[in-house]
Amino acid sequence: MKVSLNKIFASLLVSGAVMASAQAAEFVRYEQNGSISWGELVGSTIHQLTDAPYLGGTHTGQSVAQSAVKLKAPVDPELVVMTALNFRSHLTGEPAEYPGLFVVPANSIIGPDEPMIIPADSSNFHYEAEAIVVIGKHAENVSIEDARDYIFGVTAGNDGSARDWQGADLQWTRAKGSKTFNAVGPKIVTDLNPNELQIEGRLNGERRQGENTSDMLYNFDYMVSYISRYFTLEPGDLVWSGTMGRTQQMVGGDVYEVEVEGVGILRNPIEQAK
Amino acid sequence: MKVSLNKIFASLLVSGAVMASAQAAEFVRYEQNGSISWGELVGSTIHQLTDAPYLGGTHTGQSVAQSAVKLKAPVDPELVVMTALNFRSHLTGEPAEYPGLFVVPANSIIGPDEPMIIPADSSNFHYEAEAIVVIGKHAENVSIEDARDYIFGVTAGNDGSARDWQGADLQWTRAKGSKTFNAVGPKIVTDLNPNELQIEGRLNGERRQGENTSDMLYNFDYMVSYISRYFTLEPGDLVWSGTMGRTQQMVGGDVYEVEVEGVGILRNPIEQAK
Repeated sequence: MKVSLNKIFASLLVSGAVMASAQAAEFVRYEQNGSISWGELVGSTIHQLTDAPYLGGTHTGQSVAQSAVKLKAPVDPELVVMTALNFRSHLTGEPAEYPGLFVVPANSIIGPDEPMIIPADSSNFHYEAEAIVVIGKHAENVSIEDARDYIFGVTAGNDGSARDWQGADLQWTRAKGSKTFNAVGPKIVTDLNPNELQIEGRLNGERRQGENTSDMLYNFDYMVSYISRYFTLEPGDLVWSGTMGRTQQMVGGDVYEVEVEGVGILRNPIEQAK
Repeated sequence: MKVSLNKIFASLLVSGAVMASAQAAEFVRYEQNGSISWGELVGSTIHQLTDAPYLGGTHTGQSVAQSAVKLKAPVDPELVVMTALNFRSHLTGEPAEYPGLFVVPANSIIGPDEPMIIPADSSNFHYEAEAIVVIGKHAENVSIEDARDYIFGVTAGNDGSARDWQGADLQWTRAKGSKTFNAVGPKIVTDLNPNELQIEGRLNGERRQGENTSDMLYNFDYMVSYISRYFTLEPGDLVWSGTMGRTQQMVGGDVYEVEVEGVGILRNPIEQAK
């Protein structure tokens, strides 16, 4: 009986250790005195890191209150892969036989509270609330079963889309990849199940989008596996979920919020360029 | 008379200096003893550089015979912008009202003599001979008149295209951006007029493509200006010309050559993955 209890106790200890290591960590990128750093966010304090967390960054020993700095997009990818028509509610026809991949320039990304700027020659700019997974390690030909090991964490995104260009251009690149069109943040959170997260979108505080990543036609495990068959994914690269529902226009002066469960709220003002 | 002759002589000297600075320089990237360097190619000798030439790399003082090293793709871009349907000979309908931009992952690029690998699940892989300009400095909202100042040099490319995927996928990204699909090289050459260069394509030595960049519907000056309105271009980024004529299938065992006037020959074997 004593041995048996010890076994149960040992098993509980192991579970406890696993649970502890599975507790979510939160990471941000921030600007302070003109330089940009990575940090781990604990409560309202940012502990500076030597490098991106997915590159093995460790604490420098410096800390700062989050309120004292400006948050930047918590990502620094080389490759940004998006997915089209990945929620049934966003489709007008039948689902595609495989994910509708496309890529956008990494330097189209902006961070929390930074303005998404509608170019002077576009007149129909829509929101697209999405969840994003951040890749944690070099990925080529990864199986669906192993895909989760290659996901470092989750963040939120708004893939601003110039529908006038999206309809007229041969490809979607300008419509979805022009500068400031892709807002990301406010932080990366680890140890979430990326395939069971609520996504909400609010225009000027009014709910316009809401669905769960469990509704994705191709979930993140499938996406990472599929993408890694054709492209080489590196630490820090991004895979976007696709958006849900019928989207609508934003105009200068609007504010759009994307909230991903466990990640928090990404809020961006919209500006119309003259 | 003496003064006058001196003036003429001085003026000739100045012309000579200007001509010297406008003489083409040639740059390569190469692998030696497991490390990759940039170099300036003079005749058959590579003079090692401290950094990419468009980032101000200077001679290290080390040299090596070209024949002693393996050439890599002479580019290291963050953003790779391609242009669709930019030669009338490649169109089936009327030209688009503006350039058909799209972007592909930078790590889809391979160098001279490296194999372009047809994935096991593709069965109709075409060549696309193109000229490429390499951006020399940060470019945003550049005018057509100023665009040439932002072009560092010219190289050659083969944008391998899986036509079966290009027809079936929602966007062209997988068809044109999968790994090894984009061969670039063998060198960057400066001080060429990018809008007056002959491009030739040869399948197993037989001429299959041939046209001049002066036939581009949107020339490189226009392209760089147009792209810089929507995207931010950085030193080292690439803008591809688009291809010409009717293209055809390549299969495992084939060799495709792209020759751009003044740049030389980019040669790649084709492999079929099992």
